[in-house]
Amino acid sequence: MKLTSIGIEEIRDIARGAAILGCGGGGDPEIGRLMAEAAIEELGPVTIVDPQDIADDSFILASAMMGAPTVVIEKIPRGTEPLAAFRRIEKELGKSADAVCSMECGGLNSTIPILVAAQTRLPLLDGDGMGRAFPELQMETFSVYGVPGTPACVVDEDGNTVICEASSDVEMEWLLRGVTIRMGGAAYLAHYPMSGADFKRTAVRNTLTLAFELGRAVRVARAGQNDPVKAVGQTFHGTVYGDVTELFRGKVFDVQRETRRGFALGKATVNGADEFDGSILTISFQNENLVAWRDGKAVATVPDLIIFLDPETGEAIPTERLRYGQRAAILCVAAPPIMTSLESLAVWGPLAFGYTGLDYWSIRIARTSLVSKLS
Amino acid sequence: MKLTSIGIEEIRDIARGAAILGCGGGGDPEIGRLMAEAAIEELGPVTIVDPQDIADDSFILASAMMGAPTVVIEKIPRGTEPLAAFRRIEKELGKSADAVCSMECGGLNSTIPILVAAQTRLPLLDGDGMGRAFPELQMETFSVYGVPGTPACVVDEDGNTVICEASSDVEMEWLLRGVTIRMGGAAYLAHYPMSGADFKRTAVRNTLTLAFELGRAVRVARAGQNDPVKAVGQTFHGTVYGDVTELFRGKVFDVQRETRRGFALGKATVNGADEFDGSILTISFQNENLVAWRDGKAVATVPDLIIFLDPETGEAIPTERLRYGQRAAILCVAAPPIMTSLESLAVWGPLAFGYTGLDYWSIRIARTSLVSKLS
Repeated sequence: MKLTSIGIEEIRDIARGAAILGCGGGGDPEIGRLMAEAAIEELGPVTIVDPQDIADDSFILASAMMGAPTVVIEKIPRGTEPLAAFRRIEKELGKSADAVCSMECGGLNSTIPILVAAQTRLPLLDGDGMGRAFPELQMETFSVYGVPGTPACVVDEDGNTVICEASSDVEMEWLLRGVTIRMGGAAYLAHYPMSGADFKRTAVRNTLTLAFELGRAVRVARAGQNDPVKAVGQTFHGTVYGDVTELFRGKVFDVQRETRRGFALGKATVNGADEFDGSILTISFQNENLVAWRDGKAVATVPDLIIFLDPETGEAIPTERLRYGQRAAILCVAAPPIMTSLESLAVWGPLAFGYTGLDYWSIRIARTSLVSKLS
Repeated sequence: MKLTSIGIEEIRDIARGAAILGCGGGGDPEIGRLMAEAAIEELGPVTIVDPQDIADDSFILASAMMGAPTVVIEKIPRGTEPLAAFRRIEKELGKSADAVCSMECGGLNSTIPILVAAQTRLPLLDGDGMGRAFPELQMETFSVYGVPGTPACVVDEDGNTVICEASSDVEMEWLLRGVTIRMGGAAYLAHYPMSGADFKRTAVRNTLTLAFELGRAVRVARAGQNDPVKAVGQTFHGTVYGDVTELFRGKVFDVQRETRRGFALGKATVNGADEFDGSILTISFQNENLVAWRDGKAVATVPDLIIFLDPETGEAIPTERLRYGQRAAILCVAAPPIMTSLESLAVWGPLAFGYTGLDYWSIRIARTSLVSKLS
């Protein structure tokens, strides 16, 4: 069932589901949820449009937060920044947007575009450019399939505004990451101006609906005293995403984390429990979970989604909140085909994050025999 | 005699004089000179306009390099960057400039605006916003007296373009310094869009003429086998600048230098010779020479101009070229009144650079009794 409108009711489920799709990153969705709720209360619900229904010549703009999730939970936005960045790019290009879209469907960046859609009274597209959360701005299906990210605009809480026209999306990321660091580690962004036709061609579709359904499934399972982790697995079934596996279950016993280069970087280690007793899972992250090793052997890697869930509540555990003693079920979801093409893997495969010697497809194929399917 | 036009003849003298006004910084003027010469050869001489002769409602834009001088001598520009930044701000504001101005009259930033004036066929104003070189973008008489620095635009050799609209000129400096660092440590800038009336009110006037006269005086003295250091002292006489003193003479015996935070930072120590025998002079710099201590006692400080000259040739020695064994005459020139107001000293007095306990006026007054006058 596709989402057609977002009111107060839907936002909580979307935020819960987007935290799951955030793969540990994307920023705490609660802050965006609070802002979006306030805007919807004041201005009414947001219309959701399926990508197949937008006009090819419509003008789309992506709204987002940029920064380290560790910073976002302490540096609360004013609430006017995302709209200011959005309006600035409209002004730059001399035309008004026909719809808002998400650059990533995970974490805070699922709710920020809801806020902007409510503030502008524009429809919000059901789809995004990551199909999850990734740490860098060029890591977008938009970019992979030829839509330039710039002109892009970042705005901070003091109204400082920086517009970037870059020679490549990697340059955009590099320059605006520097700006975001100097803006205090988190800022708000409008970028990837594109046509409706480009969005249809390049977006991962219906990820807002998926976030909503994930959040609702967890809530419903909890209310009916069913297993919320299983409910997450079942929700992915039948979507463009591939098989869901339970990689591991256990207790976090070590977290190394630092905010460096504008990112939350680190490693978490989990002691196995139940069927994983005696095993150790290690996860490395850059805002998002990147690679998981079980007893030293890689069992999952970007772009597949590596998700920490609280096994009791089914709530996602973001990397900035991982802590000693926490129980976790760690799932892996195969990324959809649009995200596993050769062009895509060049941008967000393990090598793009500096992991040499890890072959995405071998790991994905090997994993299916190693771990239990959930859906 | 005021400069009215710049051809190939004048550029070498201007570059030589601007290196003196650069106070050790501003970047090597040779690179800018070569680019400006090529442009003038192709497009003809540049008209110089006295600030008093510009229309109040004319539109002025400042052109400059931004970065660490240590980087500029190795990272050669393409030559199109300053004009690209200039045109981008014109486009941003939807109007064409009537004249080009310098943000600083020292170093490379004296010749970059000549290049842009030649390329645009616009007149170049005889004046600037620093009356010397300073390391940071808010250190401008323009800013001190109320002309905002933004919108500002920086461009690098790959055509990457960043436009900044900042809440203050300190924020502009902070954000664009970050961008410049990520552009490789040097980039090209257009900023301080202003009216002719604003330029008249806030600029340090006739500094291009002064650079030309300093350069010529050194050349002429050398040709006539006269003392070029004395010629420099005499040239400042009768200008808006105050008394010129020879602070010290000796041999450099230690240089500590590093490129950090986007600046060339360091300290040089000079062993006294002749009448300064037995004394030691220490100079700290951030791109430009900031404070001089003789035997532990501060004898000169920003904004007064602290200038290293080769005593044989009269050529200025920039901080990025200071080296062991070099002979140097170190002059100090009192900054003009527009640069020593309370508002000005708040922006570029010793405290603005983190030197606590140094009072600009006490040091300036004490200096006159300590050292020999040159002019």
